[in-house]
Amino acid sequence: MRTYADCFPCFIRQTIIALRQLTDDEGLQERMIKEVLPVIAAADMEKPPAYTTTFLHRAIRQRLGEDPFRNIKHTYNSLALGLYPRLRERVRESAEPLWTAARLAIAGNVIDFGIFTSVDINGSVTRALEPCIAVDDYPSFLAAVRETDSILYLLDNAGEIVFDRLLIEELQASGKKVKAVVKGSAVLNDVTMEDALQVGLPELCEVTDNGSDAIGTILEWTSAEFRAEFEKADLVVSKGQGNFETLCGTRKRTFFLFQSKCEVVSKDLGLSAGSMLLKKS
Amino acid sequence: MRTYADCFPCFIRQTIIALRQLTDDEGLQERMIKEVLPVIAAADMEKPPAYTTTFLHRAIRQRLGEDPFRNIKHTYNSLALGLYPRLRERVRESAEPLWTAARLAIAGNVIDFGIFTSVDINGSVTRALEPCIAVDDYPSFLAAVRETDSILYLLDNAGEIVFDRLLIEELQASGKKVKAVVKGSAVLNDVTMEDALQVGLPELCEVTDNGSDAIGTILEWTSAEFRAEFEKADLVVSKGQGNFETLCGTRKRTFFLFQSKCEVVSKDLGLSAGSMLLKKS
Repeated sequence: MRTYADCFPCFIRQTIIALRQLTDDEGLQERMIKEVLPVIAAADMEKPPAYTTTFLHRAIRQRLGEDPFRNIKHTYNSLALGLYPRLRERVRESAEPLWTAARLAIAGNVIDFGIFTSVDINGSVTRALEPCIAVDDYPSFLAAVRETDSILYLLDNAGEIVFDRLLIEELQASGKKVKAVVKGSAVLNDVTMEDALQVGLPELCEVTDNGSDAIGTILEWTSAEFRAEFEKADLVVSKGQGNFETLCGTRKRTFFLFQSKCEVVSKDLGLSAGSMLLKKS
Repeated sequence: MRTYADCFPCFIRQTIIALRQLTDDEGLQERMIKEVLPVIAAADMEKPPAYTTTFLHRAIRQRLGEDPFRNIKHTYNSLALGLYPRLRERVRESAEPLWTAARLAIAGNVIDFGIFTSVDINGSVTRALEPCIAVDDYPSFLAAVRETDSILYLLDNAGEIVFDRLLIEELQASGKKVKAVVKGSAVLNDVTMEDALQVGLPELCEVTDNGSDAIGTILEWTSAEFRAEFEKADLVVSKGQGNFETLCGTRKRTFFLFQSKCEVVSKDLGLSAGSMLLKKS
């Protein structure tokens, strides 16, 4: 998808959210916003908004000298790990564990500091487990999983990764080989290898990084190794709005599991904001 | 009040609202947003946000070659005139007509295209006529009106001006001389002489303009004639958030009648967004 006029206020909102993670100094916040306005002015409208937000978050990290989201990512991983035993039980006890785990993976996508600063995870779980969600290609997903031996799983956010763990466990329990992909380095609250280690993912499946600090998966900025993995993958599970923005145009057989959190993406999809999707490419 | 970081996304939102009044051309909208980003980058944080929004609306009018709000102002004046007979009746039938008219003047302030693009005027009227509003200095207002012979009434928005007419009628009915003030030229959906004429205000009271195209009342940009009027006024009735932002620091005896519509102003006041105020300076 492309960038729209309505993305511009959100670019600044994202900047403010990032700055407030690290500093209460209003003067510094205001100077920083003014400093990044040229980054926003240079937005390529033909590219997904994830390009501009990637540049923005790079500029903020560079200027502040550290990753604004490091602490909150750790906190959300811990909080989600606290929910894990009960969620694991819910999956195991359910009539269709893969369905339940897929829905919970969508529920976990509510954790996104690019858009929200507070998270109603219990509300999100309840909504995700209702019979109907806005787009539900689960039957195709089930068929695709059955047909394939290996799955490339593109992770999204900290906290959410614990919910992904539930789905990866179910996929592996059905005999599939899952390779999970984290970001090459810090960007927003996206997971890196540090987060995967915190939630014990490498004990469960192979975890690799995509060599990139981009929001979503901007293929031309990923490592040659990742691109080779992506090319040869039979089936991709893509988590989150950023991955949808950046990968919805590729021809790869992909299932996008996410919540359409912003007005722009929702309008592009013809859905209302807050919609949940398990969407076939 | 000063400008805060949270004003920046709103500066862009206001730009988008203005552009969409005149053009559906997304390419033009996007180019215009990029063109006005330097105006936003130049924001003086020690001044009220109304300074920056004034510069923004000037840049937009200049670039588009016309006033984006002219048609919608006309429409909202007509809509409000349609409500006028029933509202007039409500004022006359009420136990305390001045109280009712003051509250309806606050209700009318919900019409503001700087912040909203849709207006729930009936809901606003209902809320305004409830016994309690967030700040209610009506007893002081009543006393101040009784003590004075003449009132300078700073108008705000189109549509809302019909609600102001109700209050001006009540003030004049109690023997006060009211001078109503419009903007010197077009800015956002603020009233100019054209709007005053459309709603018949000059038949009721003297109407003058402040010689300025600023959001709110930025005294140093108003005409010498207006400043002289303002200086000598015994009592000022100030409508709207823009006038509050720009006049709350003056020592003039003023009553601010408005709805605190944005998060920044509401936080500054210690109120929740959407609060209604009849506030003594």
